[in-house]
Amino acid sequence: MQDLTLLLDDRGFAYGDGLFETVLVRDGRALLWEAHLARLAEGCARLGLPAPPRDRLDPLPAACAPGLQVLKLVVTRGSGGRGYRPPAEPTPRWGWSAAAFSPTPQRWFAGVEVRLCALRLGRQPRLAGLKHLARLENVLARQEWDDDIIAEGLMCDSEGYLVEATAMNLVWLHAGRLETPLLDQAGVAGTLLAALDAETPLQRVRVEPQRLQQAEAAWVCNSVQGVWPIRVLRDAEGAVLRRWDVASDDPLRGLAHPLLGYPVGPDA
Amino acid sequence: MQDLTLLLDDRGFAYGDGLFETVLVRDGRALLWEAHLARLAEGCARLGLPAPPRDRLDPLPAACAPGLQVLKLVVTRGSGGRGYRPPAEPTPRWGWSAAAFSPTPQRWFAGVEVRLCALRLGRQPRLAGLKHLARLENVLARQEWDDDIIAEGLMCDSEGYLVEATAMNLVWLHAGRLETPLLDQAGVAGTLLAALDAETPLQRVRVEPQRLQQAEAAWVCNSVQGVWPIRVLRDAEGAVLRRWDVASDDPLRGLAHPLLGYPVGPDA
Repeated sequence: MQDLTLLLDDRGFAYGDGLFETVLVRDGRALLWEAHLARLAEGCARLGLPAPPRDRLDPLPAACAPGLQVLKLVVTRGSGGRGYRPPAEPTPRWGWSAAAFSPTPQRWFAGVEVRLCALRLGRQPRLAGLKHLARLENVLARQEWDDDIIAEGLMCDSEGYLVEATAMNLVWLHAGRLETPLLDQAGVAGTLLAALDAETPLQRVRVEPQRLQQAEAAWVCNSVQGVWPIRVLRDAEGAVLRRWDVASDDPLRGLAHPLLGYPVGPDA
Repeated sequence: MQDLTLLLDDRGFAYGDGLFETVLVRDGRALLWEAHLARLAEGCARLGLPAPPRDRLDPLPAACAPGLQVLKLVVTRGSGGRGYRPPAEPTPRWGWSAAAFSPTPQRWFAGVEVRLCALRLGRQPRLAGLKHLARLENVLARQEWDDDIIAEGLMCDSEGYLVEATAMNLVWLHAGRLETPLLDQAGVAGTLLAALDAETPLQRVRVEPQRLQQAEAAWVCNSVQGVWPIRVLRDAEGAVLRRWDVASDDPLRGLAHPLLGYPVGPDA
């Protein structure tokens, strides 16, 4: 046990009263930087806290080490207020850290196994879409399995509608159209998802997992890992619900990976 | 803006992956100490993290300054893991702080005004009852008003059922029986509520705010502030929904305040 006394006072720590971003940085250049800053700014506006000044954020990617790094950026409402009540004029705190990152090409090209999580996300439109610090539900969902063959867990909301994976968004092809769950009640509005949406129409739908089982193809994706085609879908007990063949020329990867500087095919 | 770099790594900070307790301490003696430790232990069990050793916790109240203090105790899952995935064998961190506290006798004896919050709590049975660190919903609810005449805000869940106040539990008298909302989907299982339940039967009910409006009397209460009778109930726009006369010999205060060392009447 270590001592935490110095941290107790920050509202990000005390209540999850803050936001974060995890940004892929290659040789000092951030990928999808504008999308990350836009989500952070929207989050600050919706929580009612001043956004960190842009001129303090823009130099951060160049301050990361060379090669592939993940830059984590955190903003909190700082200290003060009385209990849950925020101070009228908060003095936000922010910080960042960077760590070397290696993606997993095998997951890009051979696909992954995923499972449905038993945990269902609470519906909270006031927080839906934001990458806020109160993510204990994601921790509990990720705690449901420790078999490394399972790459991700898919979560529904308390009404049983698909939302996302624990740390990635979910996209599938249904009747020739790309679909992804509505994120107006729960989940994080991924920056790669937003960038894909600008490239090709993604239909936002409120559906149960049966819809996914009927899909022609399915993927999980985010701005750090890229696109993983789903090869096997299991239920929360581990039984196989559906298998898909993984195409060698994956159209979603073809759109997404150039945005992240990742290869579109195994030969690249 | 201050720097947060040193904190980024703790899972309590990163994800709200931890628990806290706020304990009333009078002259080095904790009130309802066993109830606080029981809730903390249950929280640790439900989150899957080792509880702090009892022999480290028991000396803390005596380490507080004389007089009335609030002892805040925080436990997190510590550092480590990969993203949301917790480490297989977490090394929890814990910390505490104490601050002088003064209750508000006027609220005990003259009662308070409360309002209904527009925010509705997400339903999450896996976290319901726990005093975990992911409390951003409470912050948003508390942000809905800044008129000091309003002492608390009452929150419903996403289905419209009453849950609790932002930092207190809710009790009312209906047809001569004490009722309080079920806390199996959202909310914090208050230690004073648990202690009251041991003194007198509290009926746990899943009801909408209309039920509260029909009550003969109503209170908000917690283990730090004691019992506040509700004098005026307003809706989220400020309109009065109901007024109650506040009894000078309040039976709920008569049960609760001896547990906290607070007076049962204004003459004490």
